[in-house]
Amino acid sequence: MEKKIKIGLLGFGTVGTGVVRVFQENRHEISRKAGAQIEIGYVLVRDINKQRTYTDGLQLTDDINDILKDKEIDIVIELMGGMHPAREYMLRAMEAGKSVVTANKDVVARCGKELFAMAEEHDVDFMFEASVGGGIPIITPLKQCLTANRITEVMGIVNGTTNYMLTKMTQGGSDYGAVLKEAQNKGYAEADPSADVEGLDAARKAAILASIAFNTRICLDDVSIEGITHITPADIEYATELGYVIKLLAIARESPDKGVNVRVHPTFLPKDHPLAAVSDVFNAIFIQGNAIGEAMFYGRGAGSLPTASAVVADVVDVVRDIVNHTFGRIRCTCYEKKKICPIEETVSAYYVRLLVEDQPGVLGTIATVFGAQGVSLNSVIQTRRVDDCAEIVAITHSVAHKKIEKAVSVLRGLAVVTEIRNIIRVENGQGAV
Amino acid sequence: MEKKIKIGLLGFGTVGTGVVRVFQENRHEISRKAGAQIEIGYVLVRDINKQRTYTDGLQLTDDINDILKDKEIDIVIELMGGMHPAREYMLRAMEAGKSVVTANKDVVARCGKELFAMAEEHDVDFMFEASVGGGIPIITPLKQCLTANRITEVMGIVNGTTNYMLTKMTQGGSDYGAVLKEAQNKGYAEADPSADVEGLDAARKAAILASIAFNTRICLDDVSIEGITHITPADIEYATELGYVIKLLAIARESPDKGVNVRVHPTFLPKDHPLAAVSDVFNAIFIQGNAIGEAMFYGRGAGSLPTASAVVADVVDVVRDIVNHTFGRIRCTCYEKKKICPIEETVSAYYVRLLVEDQPGVLGTIATVFGAQGVSLNSVIQTRRVDDCAEIVAITHSVAHKKIEKAVSVLRGLAVVTEIRNIIRVENGQGAV
Repeated sequence: MEKKIKIGLLGFGTVGTGVVRVFQENRHEISRKAGAQIEIGYVLVRDINKQRTYTDGLQLTDDINDILKDKEIDIVIELMGGMHPAREYMLRAMEAGKSVVTANKDVVARCGKELFAMAEEHDVDFMFEASVGGGIPIITPLKQCLTANRITEVMGIVNGTTNYMLTKMTQGGSDYGAVLKEAQNKGYAEADPSADVEGLDAARKAAILASIAFNTRICLDDVSIEGITHITPADIEYATELGYVIKLLAIARESPDKGVNVRVHPTFLPKDHPLAAVSDVFNAIFIQGNAIGEAMFYGRGAGSLPTASAVVADVVDVVRDIVNHTFGRIRCTCYEKKKICPIEETVSAYYVRLLVEDQPGVLGTIATVFGAQGVSLNSVIQTRRVDDCAEIVAITHSVAHKKIEKAVSVLRGLAVVTEIRNIIRVENGQGAV
Repeated sequence: MEKKIKIGLLGFGTVGTGVVRVFQENRHEISRKAGAQIEIGYVLVRDINKQRTYTDGLQLTDDINDILKDKEIDIVIELMGGMHPAREYMLRAMEAGKSVVTANKDVVARCGKELFAMAEEHDVDFMFEASVGGGIPIITPLKQCLTANRITEVMGIVNGTTNYMLTKMTQGGSDYGAVLKEAQNKGYAEADPSADVEGLDAARKAAILASIAFNTRICLDDVSIEGITHITPADIEYATELGYVIKLLAIARESPDKGVNVRVHPTFLPKDHPLAAVSDVFNAIFIQGNAIGEAMFYGRGAGSLPTASAVVADVVDVVRDIVNHTFGRIRCTCYEKKKICPIEETVSAYYVRLLVEDQPGVLGTIATVFGAQGVSLNSVIQTRRVDDCAEIVAITHSVAHKKIEKAVSVLRGLAVVTEIRNIIRVENGQGAV
């Protein structure tokens, strides 16, 4: 209990403040578990004159060298966000012999290999539990608790903003614009919400999750991305009526022949799927492994204290390594080079909503086109009149991406088809890549 | 990758067979992650002549000394179940310098201290992820991923048999006897189901979870236990009508003034609680911490391969320790001696179902008695006629255990009260000890 470990904290925003609070409020418990006293040496901020709370006993600096050159600092926590200079500071910290803990999904998704190589070279730890799922333990469980499994599927609700928006659209029937404004007012969505609503944030997390689950490096470029901006109250209503909920899912699957496919898109998810009950800003990651079967990890995917929970747990792990001289027990786990399966070669069920001319026989015409293109239908319903047209909703069985594309393009060319209003993938539990 | 680690397996039943299968089927992945080849040296069985599957390449023995005296065996997996001789074999294995991995909740709940002391004395690992929640990672997450938190509540569905039975009673309206028979036919319940239905199995797991969550030793004797044998279709119906589901919960809570309370009992759980959607044989553990907020871990709580998933993950962890010479990084975490809060001093909301004489004013009489004893009511409904009587269901606000006992005893003495039919605790989200 005598040993003292000093930390340098880069960034003092929402999560940084959370980390300081957690160290203050749970000091006793944390020291006990870590086996050493932990003390925040410096906090790197952009403006040292800015008014802040929770600064008691903290030394602020705007010079990274105060931290990098302080030989007493063993651990650097990076919470600045963004690529630069976060990446460079982390690399320089490791060069200086300091272990690094980060919540930065952007840098981890893009520079994981480089960071792990640096950590190995300098025999320090590099940890990033908080980069996916906020407070939810998922990186450590994947690297340590599911090692007996060949993982076949990772499916996650990993963006709280869009999950909040879709939940509100489902509960209240509001449209996309209204719920976006509501999310912005509550601080769940940023002024420029594009990284969230267009799926980029989820895609970064998907790349990290898939890399660890399948032990191969998945880059952001390997992830197909589709956001929620085209989801309308009508789609939500049909989903409800047909026994589904619409969720923005990050899905990563591996099949022995096709390789690894990773994608982010809105999905019709059956109401009884464990992920279907994950509402509001909550996140959850659902995993299929050939030994464990199904497992799910649920919790708060963002926020000051939940994210700090993951950051500080990583720090405790590093301190245990310092105290016990056990660095590098688990390093980069991307052991293999695996084939990436592009989205064009995947198989899925689909929901297709079309506006057609309201005349006898149209339903048959549509069904015939699907059939001719090899798309087998699970159900077709003609539902309501919109202006002078009729709306038709079709749910297909699992079908190759190319076939659905071809069928939709033929449908578009039909005189009776006024508009293809939406196409959304349907999870039917077959788990095919 | 050159190193070879030899294992001794004690027991070749359901889980033992699962462990052998997982090592066979995922050999490549497991070796990669562990950093060494893993090989099962001996399997201890009671009868070496019994016909078995999955014995390819395995050496069976009925003599524990073949394993204890084999200097090449570094790890012993104990899957015999029961107290004796499982406890003695584990202790002797550690004395012989071997690390031990077990799924034995009985021994862990009763002899955890002794086993950890032996592991420390001989500088080996002692791991037991599979003892709670089957395949669900929960011990490692608690010991490693939630270390930043002061945990205030652990609430788990940790017995698959009873969860299956309650799910069937809720879905089908069948009575206790019928669903028990169904569970026995499916192999989910044993011929003598008492350890499951009377709550003992869940209580062992509750003791283990509480010990780790609150960093203090909780013995089985510290756990109040109530099973599901008195739950009737009528209770299930009222629960549904009132917006609840009935679950057998293991609940452990700590409050600064009262200490730690651990108990197992059937519970009215609000339908929108994350645990409410955990059906059939699935298990889940819900956790509240002062940093993470709410988190939940969900999966298969039993079964050959899921349990083997947890056992083999522990083995991989031990092998990493052997390869990296990093034993004892995390040992027993029961650092503190904490006050135990007996059930008599707890506070809870209650569901009380009574049969009363069907005459005017009875409802008022009942409500008055509750009020006079300081029991404030959330709702009282007079619902249906049973024989010549009327049935009344009351849901109380949070109230001290003693007050509800007193109120019920006064009610029992009333001439108009024919019978107190059931009393079940209600989770109202206040999380009080």
